[in-house]
Amino acid sequence: MGTYRLVLEYDGSGFAGWQRQVVGVRTVQGALEHALAEIAAGRPAVLGASRTDAGVHAEGQVASVRLETRLDTATLRRALNAMLPPDVVVRSLALAPEGFHALRDARSKVYRYAVWNGDARSPLRAKRFHHQPGPLDVAAMRAAASCLVGRHDFASFQSRAANWQAEAQRRGVVRSTVRTLFRADLEGEAGGEIRIELEGDGFLRQMVRSIAGTLLEVGRGHRRPESIPDVLAARHRPVAGAAAPAAGLTLVRVGYPPEKLGDPPAPAGPDAAGRAETFDRTRA
Amino acid sequence: MGTYRLVLEYDGSGFAGWQRQVVGVRTVQGALEHALAEIAAGRPAVLGASRTDAGVHAEGQVASVRLETRLDTATLRRALNAMLPPDVVVRSLALAPEGFHALRDARSKVYRYAVWNGDARSPLRAKRFHHQPGPLDVAAMRAAASCLVGRHDFASFQSRAANWQAEAQRRGVVRSTVRTLFRADLEGEAGGEIRIELEGDGFLRQMVRSIAGTLLEVGRGHRRPESIPDVLAARHRPVAGAAAPAAGLTLVRVGYPPEKLGDPPAPAGPDAAGRAETFDRTRA
Repeated sequence: MGTYRLVLEYDGSGFAGWQRQVVGVRTVQGALEHALAEIAAGRPAVLGASRTDAGVHAEGQVASVRLETRLDTATLRRALNAMLPPDVVVRSLALAPEGFHALRDARSKVYRYAVWNGDARSPLRAKRFHHQPGPLDVAAMRAAASCLVGRHDFASFQSRAANWQAEAQRRGVVRSTVRTLFRADLEGEAGGEIRIELEGDGFLRQMVRSIAGTLLEVGRGHRRPESIPDVLAARHRPVAGAAAPAAGLTLVRVGYPPEKLGDPPAPAGPDAAGRAETFDRTRA
Repeated sequence: MGTYRLVLEYDGSGFAGWQRQVVGVRTVQGALEHALAEIAAGRPAVLGASRTDAGVHAEGQVASVRLETRLDTATLRRALNAMLPPDVVVRSLALAPEGFHALRDARSKVYRYAVWNGDARSPLRAKRFHHQPGPLDVAAMRAAASCLVGRHDFASFQSRAANWQAEAQRRGVVRSTVRTLFRADLEGEAGGEIRIELEGDGFLRQMVRSIAGTLLEVGRGHRRPESIPDVLAARHRPVAGAAAPAAGLTLVRVGYPPEKLGDPPAPAGPDAAGRAETFDRTRA
């Protein structure tokens, strides 16, 4: 038995999110476990660093899994990718230190929310950008985003979905809504592509989409940047803006402390090497 | 009656190419003409600057059409976009000088061929990149590409498809295979995204994909960059490399002489303005 760390890329459009659900519902976790069951012994259970919602994409989701297999990591990765559907791929796979847990050991995550501010909808961007036409004050959005950086109680930006709360309680997860946002960058300009990139030590359910929705309200002049501290202080979901649509959201990468990384990812193809570097760069 | 110039974006994945075919085959020209027939009088016939193949995308295809309509250009564009399917959009629409002909008046075209050289396939790039794993010598590819710049007989890079030759003959098109390539740029690096961008006064059928396929053979070491002049001199299709797959190809923009542009595109939304500038920049 060994514990493996997988870095995954997926196009979320065709998945009902990360988390395994009832039979017949297509999820990333389900697809991975199905492929693993064909390759390794038993019924391997995959743990993801982030339970991305339906329609949310990932460039660098991280998963951990304990496996009984005699395959080396390079062969295991190739076999998995041959079994997986076209919309999900294992970018790298490595043996992790015993007990590595993709969710619990994560120290930082980077999410990107992409907005297309063109006048007309954009077919080539449809799956990965939220289309928001009309004037946007990007400077105001940037000012508002900067108010979110730091250690705050983000309860106003947490989804109120009851099933999520109930599940958290059942799993005995600490219910604190305090998180630290290391940075909140806005790239791009009005009329074109705008990317909101957030890096933090953890994110509440729908937090990135709620922040993106709130920043877009600021951009449209429906809310002042100076009101953001009050939104945080309220700790009340309805005070913030509506969650922006899932298609604009991508989980970019997950960072771990060096002692949790163990061996470098294999195989040493040009892609795997490039990814490993990106991955390491975000270690908290 | 007025002649209009349309700048179009489409995701080619769901279309059997630009050109109208038999009933039931989904084409971009067909979708446009169907939408126009609902809005304007008669059965408007749309002319495209480039007959893109099945699976080929466009960021800036240009079309011309003569219309009988009382709608102003802004309203006409909005109405068209409301009628068109999600995978095609009119980015801008303007009244053109009488007799404007999107194909005949075009002076330059820019195409981009996108390659994903990562070790593993990339779900988020699948529709717009050709996946070519394994080592690629990008410097050799760049050297080979530079041999193609200039005025040459590109017969070696022309599709041999019989129906295309026959149609050209029927339409009385000049059969010269001499074209001028203004530039052939390679961006990116091995292991990541590589973009081949070609700008020329015109392109033969499958010329860009044949060039991309040949450059990839150079990159993989199956062909030396110094052999490119011989490939051109041979004027014989089998001497060049196989055409690279359609999904990697995007028609970026089409340039026209100033006197053919007429009014600036309408409406003056942030998107339309941005596009008009890009459009004008490439006037030959």
